[in-house]
Amino acid sequence: MNSSPQSALLFISLDYGISKSLPDQIYNQIKEAVLTGRLKPGARLPATRVLANQLAVSRNTVVAAFELLGSEDYLVSRPGSGTRITSHLPEELLMIRSQPKNPVDKPADVGKISKLSLHLGGDDNKGRHHTSGLRAFRPGLPDLEHFPFQLWSRIIGRFWRNPPRDLLSSGDVAGYLPLREAIADYLGAVRGVRCNADQVFITSGAQQAIDLVARTIIDPGDDVWVENPGYAGLSSALMAAGARVNHIILDEEGICIKNGRHKAAGAVLAAVTPSHQYPLGITMSLKRRLELLEWAEEANAWLLEDDFDSEFRYSGKPLSALQGLDQTNRVIYIGTFSKVLFPSLRLGYVVVPESLIDAIANIRLAVDDHPTLALQPALHAFISDGYFSSHIRKLRKLYIERQGLLISALRQYADGLLFAAPNDSGMHLVASINPSFGIDDKTASQRASNAGLIAPALSDYCTGISLPAALLLGYAGLSHREIDRDVRFLVNALRR
Amino acid sequence: MNSSPQSALLFISLDYGISKSLPDQIYNQIKEAVLTGRLKPGARLPATRVLANQLAVSRNTVVAAFELLGSEDYLVSRPGSGTRITSHLPEELLMIRSQPKNPVDKPADVGKISKLSLHLGGDDNKGRHHTSGLRAFRPGLPDLEHFPFQLWSRIIGRFWRNPPRDLLSSGDVAGYLPLREAIADYLGAVRGVRCNADQVFITSGAQQAIDLVARTIIDPGDDVWVENPGYAGLSSALMAAGARVNHIILDEEGICIKNGRHKAAGAVLAAVTPSHQYPLGITMSLKRRLELLEWAEEANAWLLEDDFDSEFRYSGKPLSALQGLDQTNRVIYIGTFSKVLFPSLRLGYVVVPESLIDAIANIRLAVDDHPTLALQPALHAFISDGYFSSHIRKLRKLYIERQGLLISALRQYADGLLFAAPNDSGMHLVASINPSFGIDDKTASQRASNAGLIAPALSDYCTGISLPAALLLGYAGLSHREIDRDVRFLVNALRR
Repeated sequence: MNSSPQSALLFISLDYGISKSLPDQIYNQIKEAVLTGRLKPGARLPATRVLANQLAVSRNTVVAAFELLGSEDYLVSRPGSGTRITSHLPEELLMIRSQPKNPVDKPADVGKISKLSLHLGGDDNKGRHHTSGLRAFRPGLPDLEHFPFQLWSRIIGRFWRNPPRDLLSSGDVAGYLPLREAIADYLGAVRGVRCNADQVFITSGAQQAIDLVARTIIDPGDDVWVENPGYAGLSSALMAAGARVNHIILDEEGICIKNGRHKAAGAVLAAVTPSHQYPLGITMSLKRRLELLEWAEEANAWLLEDDFDSEFRYSGKPLSALQGLDQTNRVIYIGTFSKVLFPSLRLGYVVVPESLIDAIANIRLAVDDHPTLALQPALHAFISDGYFSSHIRKLRKLYIERQGLLISALRQYADGLLFAAPNDSGMHLVASINPSFGIDDKTASQRASNAGLIAPALSDYCTGISLPAALLLGYAGLSHREIDRDVRFLVNALRR
Repeated sequence: MNSSPQSALLFISLDYGISKSLPDQIYNQIKEAVLTGRLKPGARLPATRVLANQLAVSRNTVVAAFELLGSEDYLVSRPGSGTRITSHLPEELLMIRSQPKNPVDKPADVGKISKLSLHLGGDDNKGRHHTSGLRAFRPGLPDLEHFPFQLWSRIIGRFWRNPPRDLLSSGDVAGYLPLREAIADYLGAVRGVRCNADQVFITSGAQQAIDLVARTIIDPGDDVWVENPGYAGLSSALMAAGARVNHIILDEEGICIKNGRHKAAGAVLAAVTPSHQYPLGITMSLKRRLELLEWAEEANAWLLEDDFDSEFRYSGKPLSALQGLDQTNRVIYIGTFSKVLFPSLRLGYVVVPESLIDAIANIRLAVDDHPTLALQPALHAFISDGYFSSHIRKLRKLYIERQGLLISALRQYADGLLFAAPNDSGMHLVASINPSFGIDDKTASQRASNAGLIAPALSDYCTGISLPAALLLGYAGLSHREIDRDVRFLVNALRR
């Protein structure tokens, strides 16, 4: 390519206006060309005079650049043979010399893009890039004002002042054992989940729990059931593992087994939210639970129970988990601390049947080895000292009040436009848009968004079905004042 | 199945010796049978007298159990029609009543196991279940005595006392921006990596970084190259994504491109450790780096550069990363904080070309949404206040001393049996076993293990090739006293 010395350096392009000196620019570009193989070892360079003409600079400029390069062994000059790139590239050229503190931008990609996986999650991730800063009415956002940060900070600081060395040097693939024991106890007492600590894996949130399960069970092309409407993060994790996702409709008792059998009777997994369907808030009936277990046994399928916000049940006793009903060890149970503490904590868990322990452990090693020690001991102390339970009690009281305020604010300011019925659990309500108002929920959600509010459209949780227009309105993370103010903002935004 | 009332309850089995009362046992077993569908709604039960006979208990015992069940609406008794399971199962049966605090063990799995994924990581995970408690001579174990825990605890406590609410409610899919900026600056200055913060993704350790890359790029059946010998955690993550892993031999300049072209010229990715080959400690020559880049451009393949312990280079200037040489934006660069701070921290990063940012972000959302906030702000403060650099300097000094001590201890106690040459970087040495000693390295490693020591066999890092027998001996995490003592233990164990 660079056969004649005259053309060898034609790639050099100088910027005469910038502060960097011209010799430095020439030096850098030649050096880069050597290190990247563009200039081959032994290649002959043009004479300094010729190059100076080509570049429209003084000969001294080129000489200065060549001297710099010579001093670093990139060039050799010999009488009679001119100046050449050194033929034996010394390893020292790999040494970092004067790397700019602020990295240079590389040129944009050229040519075809290299290979990417076919399973890149698809557009089921839509709407999952969070918009931070906005609060009203983000579903799932917990209250952050009543968390005992002073106490939390003391517990964390106490642990890190003098952590046991054993805990620093390696971790259990399933997580910190005392925390897993505390979770097993808690789930047994409060959720009717029957497990021991060996079956509990600490994860970086419910999303990782879903991903671990998906990767342990699914091969590309396997059928799975998800609820329709349902949680996009679930479908995207299942799709990323290659699953063929079948969106199964719901009726008032929960997921419709008949529809599931019709679409994919031989599915390898069905993912459900029995305690509090996301996003509709339905509680799966006992009859439906038994039918689901019956199908799973017939199909020899796994059931994935996502119990994402069961802590917040406001009336009656808490419902028992599907896992506690299962006699054939095919329910995998997922929970999270993000909804009780805060989302960016990223701590959740998955409880697996004993037959899955080794397989999950093996995938976990490949995925991220083990969960970070960062906050596990602190969370364990927080739970076992009783702060966790008392914080849940405090939140429960707060949230049911806030739900009531949201309902009455809607009645007061939005009557005839938006209507929400009370729900005996959760952190959001599904507010129906009066059909006579004549806008669909995507338009309504967009108008809210234009006004700086988050109010997801119910239709964005639906796949191939249409439900009456409605918006999801989270209330858990909003103060009384915010609920009142932001409902008014919302109504104004919708009326435009 | 239970057509006659007389046979309806034949499943009940009583333990007459345990402390739990007989009525309670009967109550529990019938209730469970109802909740699990074994006893269908409306099923007729035997008369109390008949059941009492069957179970060899007094009739009062059965009556007491039936009364309990009746009071909770499981049973209805009507004159003339006997006692039946309630035909409409009330939803309240889902309520948790008296769950035992210590969960009951479920029966072991019966029948065939449900479906598992074919890509369960294989046995390349061998030896990756850490044995905690043991120190000498675990490769990669850092020093834990000189870390400034008081300071670290203060920084963490300071953050958590009053964290910005925005950071609690949601996280950037790529991680905490100030930390990513600090990493981009650090890598530019110290490793010659050219990137900006947008290209940096914080991960829960190098293992997750590898996994994210594997899942973004690989589809089942794709060919990849790994080094042979090499790191098992790398292969297992690639295999878990379905890759066909080709183990490419090394020569003294690094990975052998010719062998790679021979085995899989069209591989989609080659994973390498150019700065300090794991486990052999070879530095890839500049010539080989350029050849590798040339192949990658031809094949339109990605290169994965794992720079796992480049902080610990003891002579000369640090080497520039392969990423800095790459002009075609196909090098993906991985680093970790586990080796400088401590393994259970689980904080690492991956620097991706701009063309991969969206794809990695999408997979990340499916995998675990975003990294935990737990320690990211604290680590950022630790780096930007200069503590990170000074800790590295301290460790570098400590480790080169320890390497020297290990070599002289081997010379003093193991001469003629084990021999290790100095290496100008890293945290372990590869100690050759004198062939005249007549044992292979697996036997030697097993003998060490029997004596409570970790000394992995080099052959365990090899796939289908055989290298001279050798043991990996980590020294970074061992005090002077431990090195001296444990080398003597090791030699005794090997001599038996």
